[in-house]
This record gives sequence, C-alpha cells and structure tokens, in this order.
Amino acid sequence: MTHKIIIDTDPGIDDAMAIAYAVAHPDIDLLALTTIFGNVRTHEATRNALALLNHWDVLADVAEGESAPIAIPANEPGYLVHGRNGFGGVDIPVSGGTRHDLGAVDYIIEATRRHPGEIVLCAVGPLTNLARALERDPEIVSRVKAVVVMGGAVHRKGNVTPVAEANFWNDPHAADAVLGADWPLVLAPLDCTMPVLFTPDYMEAVARENPRLGRPLADMAEAYSRFYRAHQGLGGCVPHDVMAISWLTVPGAFRLQKGALAVVTDGPAIGQCLFQPGGTKSRATVFDGRPDHLVMTDTDPALFLADFMTVMARHTT
Amino acid sequence: MTHKIIIDTDPGIDDAMAIAYAVAHPDIDLLALTTIFGNVRTHEATRNALALLNHWDVLADVAEGESAPIAIPANEPGYLVHGRNGFGGVDIPVSGGTRHDLGAVDYIIEATRRHPGEIVLCAVGPLTNLARALERDPEIVSRVKAVVVMGGAVHRKGNVTPVAEANFWNDPHAADAVLGADWPLVLAPLDCTMPVLFTPDYMEAVARENPRLGRPLADMAEAYSRFYRAHQGLGGCVPHDVMAISWLTVPGAFRLQKGALAVVTDGPAIGQCLFQPGGTKSRATVFDGRPDHLVMTDTDPALFLADFMTVMARHTT
Repeated sequence: MTHKIIIDTDPGIDDAMAIAYAVAHPDIDLLALTTIFGNVRTHEATRNALALLNHWDVLADVAEGESAPIAIPANEPGYLVHGRNGFGGVDIPVSGGTRHDLGAVDYIIEATRRHPGEIVLCAVGPLTNLARALERDPEIVSRVKAVVVMGGAVHRKGNVTPVAEANFWNDPHAADAVLGADWPLVLAPLDCTMPVLFTPDYMEAVARENPRLGRPLADMAEAYSRFYRAHQGLGGCVPHDVMAISWLTVPGAFRLQKGALAVVTDGPAIGQCLFQPGGTKSRATVFDGRPDHLVMTDTDPALFLADFMTVMARHTT
Repeated sequence: MTHKIIIDTDPGIDDAMAIAYAVAHPDIDLLALTTIFGNVRTHEATRNALALLNHWDVLADVAEGESAPIAIPANEPGYLVHGRNGFGGVDIPVSGGTRHDLGAVDYIIEATRRHPGEIVLCAVGPLTNLARALERDPEIVSRVKAVVVMGGAVHRKGNVTPVAEANFWNDPHAADAVLGADWPLVLAPLDCTMPVLFTPDYMEAVARENPRLGRPLADMAEAYSRFYRAHQGLGGCVPHDVMAISWLTVPGAFRLQKGALAVVTDGPAIGQCLFQPGGTKSRATVFDGRPDHLVMTDTDPALFLADFMTVMARHTT
C-alpha cells in the first residue's frame, strides 16, 4: 500500500531525517512539505525544505505555513539544538525550487479535497497549521486518512520544561485543538522517541549505504549529538520526527495505548500533554467529550533501527 | 534521638496508620494532632483525631484547623476512599477529650515559639494550615526543625487526575506556598508511597502483634483495600501518610532526590506538583528563586514493612 503524505515540518535535523526516510521509502508518496516555525523560523523552514528537496532531487510541493502561534508570543527558535541554520551548521544550498502559491493551511485543505480519504498528515513541528486548517474547514476531519503527530510526553518528562515537550510548548493552543478534534489521530510523544538513539557509528553506516541521502544526515547528526551529549549524557541523537513516518511503514515497532488527550495552555505547566487512558476515570473534567486517540508509548529500538537502515540502503536514484 | 512532632492530618485511614506508628514509636514524642479537611471535613477530622487518641489512651493536643482551601472552592471530601466516617465504617467512639482552645494555625505558631528548633511538622493532608501559618508568621520558617509533607507526585501519575495527587489538588495554592518557602522540607510524594502495599495478611499480623493499635487499623485496611482492588487492581492498600513519619525514624528506607518544587494552581493540570531536579535547567521560569528541597522518590518496601511491624510489635502500654 502506498501512503500519500504531507509532512508539516520545521527542518530541523530530525525533520531532515524524517524527510529522507519518506523520500527513500518505496511505499511512501511524498506530496508536499508544509512549513512551520519551531526549530527555526517559518521562512527558514521553507528555505530548508526547498534546499533538502532540491539537494535530493525530489519532486514535491513546499507550502509556507503560519509564522506565529495561535495565542501566545512566539518562543525563541530551537537554534541551540539545531544550529543557527537548522542543520547543525551543515550547508545545504538552495539552488532551485520555489514555494507553492498557496499557504500551508490552504494547501492542506485543498489537498484533502483533491484526494479525500487518501492523505496522511504527518505533523512533526508545532501544530499551528493543522489547527488553522481545522478552524477554517472543520470538515477536514472526515477527509484525512489519518493524522500522525510527533509531540508531547505522556508518561515521561518534557524536554523544554519538566513537563512540556518542545512542539506542544511552542503552540499549546494549536496542540490542544488538534488533539481534541475527532479525526483518526496517532500521537508519537517522547515516550516512543527517547528509547531510540542514532549513534555516530550507526549514522556513518547509513551514510555509507546511501551517501546522497545519508551523508548530510550523518554530518547533521554529529552536531545534534553534541547537544544530546552535553545536556543529557547520551551517546548519539534521538530521531524524534522519524517516528511519525515509521508509524505508517513499521507499526509493529511501537507499543500503543488508547486514551483522551489535552494540552495545558497556560501557567507553569504550559505545553504539557495530559493523557487519560481509555476506560479509566478521574476527577479531571478536561477530558469530557474528547475522543480517544492512539498513543505510541514505547518503541522496539532494534526493529526501528533495522527498518530505517534497510529503507535507506535499498533506496537508489 | 526523640522527635517532637505535630501531625497535621485529615483522618482518614492511612492517617490513622501514621498516628498509630507515631504513638507506638519510642523515639517519637507526639505533641499534637492539628486537623484539616480532605479525606473528611475538618470538624469530622477533629472528631476522628479525638476518637483515636482517646481509644489509644494517648495524651496529645488536638487543635482544629482551617475549614476551606485558600483560594478554590472545597472539593468533595474523600468519602469514596475512606468511607463516610473516614475510617472505612469502623466505629471508633469519641468518649472523652476536647479540642484545644487555639486553632491549628495559632497552635502551630505557638508550639514552634515554645520549642524553637525542636518541632517537626508532619503534614499528611492538604496544606492549608501550614500555608496560613506561613502567612501569619513568616518567621516560622526559622523555628521549625523540619517539615515533612505527604503529597504530590513527581515522576509518577496523580491519583485524582492524571497528574494531580489528592492533598495538593485539595488546596493547590497552599501546597505551592509551602513548597516555595525556604524551610527544611522533605516531600513524600506518591513516588515513595505507591511501591508499598499493606496486604490483608500483613495487617492481620500487625493486629496480632499489637491488638489495641493494630486491630482497628486492620479493620479499616479491609475497607481501604476494597477501594484499591476495585480501582487499581491492587491486593492491599497503600499506607501513604505513614511515609511522612517513617522518614524520621527509618530514613534509609527511602531514595532521595533534591530539587525545586512548585504546584499548578489552576487549569486542567490544577494540583500537579512540578519538580526540577537540582543542577538541571529548563525553559520553565516557575522555579526561579525557589529553594531546593528533598524529595523521597522511591522506597525499599521490605525495609519499610519490617520497621512498621517491629515498631508496632514492640509497643506495649
């Protein structure tokens, strides 16, 4: 089965890894990258999206997204983690390609009208574009095939505050709206990303197997890993955004739990993802009337790593 | 070393267990019970405190505390867990004793003036009395020997909402004030209570070793365990409040972590305890200027259970 996907993204090093995997996978038809702020600013994300597609000779649209969160002032971009250019200092020149005439929100709405029931939205940055699409055309919930979101942390700590993960923290109102909508949604929180590490050796092997896609990823991973080593003592980097794509192609690598989700939109816990497992009750009222979604709560690292390597190795252009 | 303690309490089944352990322990001098709402209403907590002391022939003061939280409407008492009388239906008649002329807040202030540097406040209910004492006499922070608080959950889920523990949820503003104060404070959150289970067999053994203190506790535990079995599938009950006393007498049973603490005071995460480990940084500003406290993050159940049994067994009156 071929998956027709749009990646909503703020490239970003792990974004580049997710895009490379989508490009390499024979069962994925990458329709477009829609861009958002987060790891970098939106116009930088657009530049980086164009640069990657051009560098890798990929025909896919790039539609530029929202430049600010729904209701909070924009946080500083994640330059500290992803470098000032979003790629850890690795230079991917933009030598061609232009962005689509439609903005990301309209692009997403139009695409789901053109291909009703066929498109999977893979959102790996803050959820502003998806929330605006829901706002502008609530019927979109019945036209997407699925929505896969990388964000939040349900049983684990956050990564920007003790309780908040970066994507949700960067636009908590958008995240809350997207998780509260009644569409087929799968959440890939830190719970499923943190068990996996791309070590320097692994990334060098990826680069050997597929130099064109893998070499820049391995170079970016080196910078990314320096951050993880300094801040968390890890011997590599965590390929967060890749999980949202791998869910489509190697779902057996993930443990799932079902339940209702909400996101804290202000106060000291701002950006925190709240999870109430299906079939349980509590004295919290925030989950009343919210649909259950699937949450990826753990990952089999060996299966995931083997799949990523295989897909990259088999890919030839 | 003898520990001169005041237990601030809303008895409550695990409160009764904590009080019994304090009564039985040769190194603890129980000065008073100060009462608070939570498991029951405040006047019921006062009645229950008097009943326990009278039933067990203990000379200690009972001072009645605040009847409502600092800034939120009072939640329903925990009758569902502790039974309508607070003791799971076990009848402990009040046959003597009267409450102190001073209210709990003034009692706590006066006691720390009379015994500067000597008193340990063991708070096992909502923290309204302690917060009011801080408000009325900020100097109290330098007169207590220590404050031990049972409440919150730092690495674990909550027990009344997915993120909030009952004591903090019942008065989040008080909890935030108490955890933000610069006094020597040790927190006993769900992280250190949930690893321990009082099974029916264990409680029957306690009752055999010490019928006078243990028999009513075993009977209460039966009702308490029915709740845990129905709601969490556990084969016994969790003696939460006992941890705040055992910290003084068997500190080696607990794992400790140091860090800053805050409590969410509104929104869907209301009552959640936020923890930032000492030496770590994040993008959260709520911890700025807050003192580090000690947090009991895990318990050795065997050590804890052996100590409780030994103390109960050795006690004779």
